[in-house]
Amino acid sequence: MTTTVTAYAAASAKAPLERTTIERRTVGEHDVLIDIRFAGICHSDIHQAREEWGEAIFPMVPGHEIAGIVEKVGPGVTRFKVGDRVGVGCMVDSCGVCEPCRSGHEQHCLEGNIQTYNGVGKDGEPTYGGYSQKVVVTEGFVVGIPDGISLDVAAPLLCAGITTYSPLKHWGAGPGKKVAVIGLGGLGHMGVKIAHALGAEVTVLSQSLRKKDDGLRLGADHYYATSDPKTFEELAGSFDIILSTVSAPLDFGAYLNLLKVGGALVNVGAPEEPIALNLFSLIGGNKILAGSAIGGIAETQEMLDFCAEHRLGAEIELIAAAEINEAYERVLGSDVRYRFVIDTATI
Amino acid sequence: MTTTVTAYAAASAKAPLERTTIERRTVGEHDVLIDIRFAGICHSDIHQAREEWGEAIFPMVPGHEIAGIVEKVGPGVTRFKVGDRVGVGCMVDSCGVCEPCRSGHEQHCLEGNIQTYNGVGKDGEPTYGGYSQKVVVTEGFVVGIPDGISLDVAAPLLCAGITTYSPLKHWGAGPGKKVAVIGLGGLGHMGVKIAHALGAEVTVLSQSLRKKDDGLRLGADHYYATSDPKTFEELAGSFDIILSTVSAPLDFGAYLNLLKVGGALVNVGAPEEPIALNLFSLIGGNKILAGSAIGGIAETQEMLDFCAEHRLGAEIELIAAAEINEAYERVLGSDVRYRFVIDTATI
Repeated sequence: MTTTVTAYAAASAKAPLERTTIERRTVGEHDVLIDIRFAGICHSDIHQAREEWGEAIFPMVPGHEIAGIVEKVGPGVTRFKVGDRVGVGCMVDSCGVCEPCRSGHEQHCLEGNIQTYNGVGKDGEPTYGGYSQKVVVTEGFVVGIPDGISLDVAAPLLCAGITTYSPLKHWGAGPGKKVAVIGLGGLGHMGVKIAHALGAEVTVLSQSLRKKDDGLRLGADHYYATSDPKTFEELAGSFDIILSTVSAPLDFGAYLNLLKVGGALVNVGAPEEPIALNLFSLIGGNKILAGSAIGGIAETQEMLDFCAEHRLGAEIELIAAAEINEAYERVLGSDVRYRFVIDTATI
Repeated sequence: MTTTVTAYAAASAKAPLERTTIERRTVGEHDVLIDIRFAGICHSDIHQAREEWGEAIFPMVPGHEIAGIVEKVGPGVTRFKVGDRVGVGCMVDSCGVCEPCRSGHEQHCLEGNIQTYNGVGKDGEPTYGGYSQKVVVTEGFVVGIPDGISLDVAAPLLCAGITTYSPLKHWGAGPGKKVAVIGLGGLGHMGVKIAHALGAEVTVLSQSLRKKDDGLRLGADHYYATSDPKTFEELAGSFDIILSTVSAPLDFGAYLNLLKVGGALVNVGAPEEPIALNLFSLIGGNKILAGSAIGGIAETQEMLDFCAEHRLGAEIELIAAAEINEAYERVLGSDVRYRFVIDTATI
């Protein structure tokens, strides 16, 4: 029996989000019904709700930073029970049998993972995201939120947290390593917190010094303005890892020059247009330009456990559902410190 | 007392190489005087002799793939004795104290390594390369050539060998890994041999199938023409490592699409102009675009020991010094299988 739940949806690409109802599927053998408590607002929600990333499915209920409480489980569910604190991130299913799926990289499923919203589930029905009261997800794509983190600040970890944790771990951020984070927004502020907690020496590279106090408070050891050309002289050859969280078209040669020999510039944000890159800026110094997309399910659980251990959550502005459209405008104006989270009790 | 030796030099950027004499410095405390037996011709010799890579020093004696016999050693030399079989590659000195030097990456010395030719030595004199009868090099930049390899086929290992060995090792080429080599020239043919000897499954990606028989004989398991669009469909998602040895401007998005999740496209050749790259081709699949420049001295010795163990040398066409200018034209026309080596007895 499906469940009718209230949600906020965009009826079409140009429409504001409005309250509506959607159907959640019957809880199947391996399904978990989650009572959503909080849902983060990611910039990509806006891109998709406005159909800026290719053809989208409407009505659309965005939201892939979901935190809630298990309300019901299917008979085959073994990892969760009613009352558990849980989260759901950017994907709700994948083929499960391809090499990436089997090696814990479900986000790179060769058949394409099933997105939490703006996707089509294995039942052929469109998926709807976290701006709603409840969601049904197969247990393999549900993660546990440890007691150490409150659900409101945990919600953004499901996208912003894993997106920064995964490359920082993969590229070896830790004691003795120097990490720079480009951009102090939703992703960047989690990058700073996580790199600091991993034991690295952290530098923020931001357009201006406007958020410097915040950056240092969040765990950065240094803060530089990239609008100042001296930054690029002073920091030449400094970093083991640079994590770019911005979508602005950067001068990549200038940033690669800030890496040590063998260092990596990893992009989790990216401009939509191709960049111009002289490959000699990679050959000199054996440098690396890499990309990273969210993380797998097991790694997402590892990230949540790590954040709980280090008492890390996102910096949030909690809003009511009626403020979503206004919040979208503020995100577009970079006017949020550092993530809007919807209190879904207000939906 | 300096030593006067015969050499082949370009008097100026547009001049053909001609026989001349140069002075080699007095053998100092830590110096090794090498009786050069063979010198390989690298494409970069031509670029520099024709001043295509910025201002160059003339007269120029090219040659950074040097194999010979120790003729004399300074009193402080501990690693070599008269009669030893030795090699010299792309550099003859570095600062020795910066972080890259101390960590075995002398090629990335922060003060700039001293190139084997077209450089200026610590004595303030220009350096002259391997197209000559003898050379004096500080022992720290001399490597031993094991008995298992003849000196003629060993010479090209000092540049083409280490340039391909270093990234293949760094990025994990070995049993169970699929490696593609773009281009079957001087670098590419060594890449194929070394990747095969490391235990990887090797594919050559060449413009045409013209050299297919050679490629398979050298150790490739598969050989594809990149002029055939079906190649890019058939091989999508196939490789752990792609080693690009060409300087042609490739469609990097198309090649990145041939990598598995987490795979690396490493460039040891590169076009002089910037490439256009959509960063989403790195983010999807957590992919890596990297560069690599030759290798350090310890790693060069490791490479030579590896090649001796596996009986690997370059495929060469041995020429007399009088044929150098003609050989340059043939290199420019890709008409060499796979490296010209000068018999320096003919200088």
